[in-house]
Amino acid sequence: MENPVCRLLGTRYPLIQAGMIWCSGWELASAVSNAGGFGVIGSGSMNADILKIHIDKTRASTNSPFGINIHLLYSHAGEIMQLVMKENIPVVITSAGNPAGYTQKLRDKGIKVIHVVSSVRFAEKAEKAGVDAIVCEGFEAGGHNGIEETTSFALIPDVRRSVSLPLIAAGGIASGRGMLAAMALGADGAQIGTRFAASLESSAHINFKERILQLKEGDTRLYLRKVGPVRMIRNAFALELEAAENSGASAEELIRILGNGKPRKGIFEGKLEEGELEIGQIASLLNEIKPAAKIVEEIIKEYTEAKKNLADAKYSF
Amino acid sequence: MENPVCRLLGTRYPLIQAGMIWCSGWELASAVSNAGGFGVIGSGSMNADILKIHIDKTRASTNSPFGINIHLLYSHAGEIMQLVMKENIPVVITSAGNPAGYTQKLRDKGIKVIHVVSSVRFAEKAEKAGVDAIVCEGFEAGGHNGIEETTSFALIPDVRRSVSLPLIAAGGIASGRGMLAAMALGADGAQIGTRFAASLESSAHINFKERILQLKEGDTRLYLRKVGPVRMIRNAFALELEAAENSGASAEELIRILGNGKPRKGIFEGKLEEGELEIGQIASLLNEIKPAAKIVEEIIKEYTEAKKNLADAKYSF
Repeated sequence: MENPVCRLLGTRYPLIQAGMIWCSGWELASAVSNAGGFGVIGSGSMNADILKIHIDKTRASTNSPFGINIHLLYSHAGEIMQLVMKENIPVVITSAGNPAGYTQKLRDKGIKVIHVVSSVRFAEKAEKAGVDAIVCEGFEAGGHNGIEETTSFALIPDVRRSVSLPLIAAGGIASGRGMLAAMALGADGAQIGTRFAASLESSAHINFKERILQLKEGDTRLYLRKVGPVRMIRNAFALELEAAENSGASAEELIRILGNGKPRKGIFEGKLEEGELEIGQIASLLNEIKPAAKIVEEIIKEYTEAKKNLADAKYSF
Repeated sequence: MENPVCRLLGTRYPLIQAGMIWCSGWELASAVSNAGGFGVIGSGSMNADILKIHIDKTRASTNSPFGINIHLLYSHAGEIMQLVMKENIPVVITSAGNPAGYTQKLRDKGIKVIHVVSSVRFAEKAEKAGVDAIVCEGFEAGGHNGIEETTSFALIPDVRRSVSLPLIAAGGIASGRGMLAAMALGADGAQIGTRFAASLESSAHINFKERILQLKEGDTRLYLRKVGPVRMIRNAFALELEAAENSGASAEELIRILGNGKPRKGIFEGKLEEGELEIGQIASLLNEIKPAAKIVEEIIKEYTEAKKNLADAKYSF
């Protein structure tokens, strides 16, 4: 375990499956962990009771380490924090909000804390708050996104030189080549969402998974800049947001259009035009729904081959 | 010359200096070419008479190959095309517009044609038009930008699998690590703008160069989506655009705010609040104005070291 992310997580590969609303329950998390990656239950669509069921089922399905992702601004974040401390979950990945409030409490219980950021400023804040590692997430990532719109090419090296913690890159990575590029830019590991959202074990609706496979460049966009940016598929709902934004809609008006439960409707219920279909730009590369274990295997294989290929004469000058 | 970009251009390194309005005249182009990269005169701020002077001065300053960048929608594009054909410039890099109109004419004269695209769709069109190589430019790039907002992480592998021509990545690259990441994603070479905009030989105003060095993440943004997207520094002029866009301004209104000659004002005359300061996101990594030769040397050195570093145990699993 020479890799700092593997050492921190106790995994074979420095490859984290992103916690994703309505996609990443126990089936996906345990499948990724069993395959040598780090599976994550996304708690953003769960209350503590539901999460407890997912924790128990994950533990019954794998002996490998796994984590819980907690969106700090989520209404159930408080009860979920209580649960992960009681359950002694080895690793918690926090996103949004300020990690200072919970980090020390979690660490006092022996729980490792990884915080997701979209900027150098928040990476430095997280390091000061005492987290164990950083995920830096670029503009190309699906779902909630940073206001600075910094892409992975610019963000990874900037965060790398600013903090000394293990650094996991996210946003735009769905393949071994992507993982290698992240490492070249200074990351120690990769977090992958989009590709696992379209895996067999993802709890997303089959309609959503099949829609992901059809996406081409430009089919996802960043919306809701005035409220809190979100990348999603450009479906009927998104075009409604787009029209409103183009004509100068206020945050209040956008929140009204957003309404409630749109991600559930789209991702979990498969209503492809009404729902909010959060997914990353890199979806354009995907063309098949595969088991998570196969995805992990393919990514690591491609990573290793791509690294070997860089020894070719065409890359030396 | 095992590298296809080096073979095409006749250079030591597969490193192209981007043609940049008000930055890349004969001084920058010849300095880059003398250092083993591929220097490019950006003709976007020149008429044919001015360009002729730059061509003559470049030829007087280097025996190495160099190119001319031509923005196909630029009002002087026609006369500039006549000049490059008359002058037998070895390589022309075209951007914007449709390359089908000029490619065959240029190639009939023995001139190699590289076309800049921001999407797979235009890459495929350019290949059909018979160009010799493709530059794919991601969302993080400075200046004119694609409407799809695809970042380099997503764009490079998608273009790589769609065309078989030599592929040069642009957008977000300012260092050897960035160049290596682009190669890992499937590029054969890199085009670098921002870092050379802040070089000693850049013809930009010193105020602009010094402003580039101060930029942090989020200090550039994409504006003018309704007219034709442009990435620029978030100065007073950009904030005026931002306010107009946020309140739903039409394309006509934005064109009125844009007015005329704003890039010249900002980049060449150094009026940092009035002017349009086109630059890439990766500016956040820069901290010193250096000679172009030094920049080329540092990028290649870092590239080679970063490639060697990937042999470390921490990158093998």
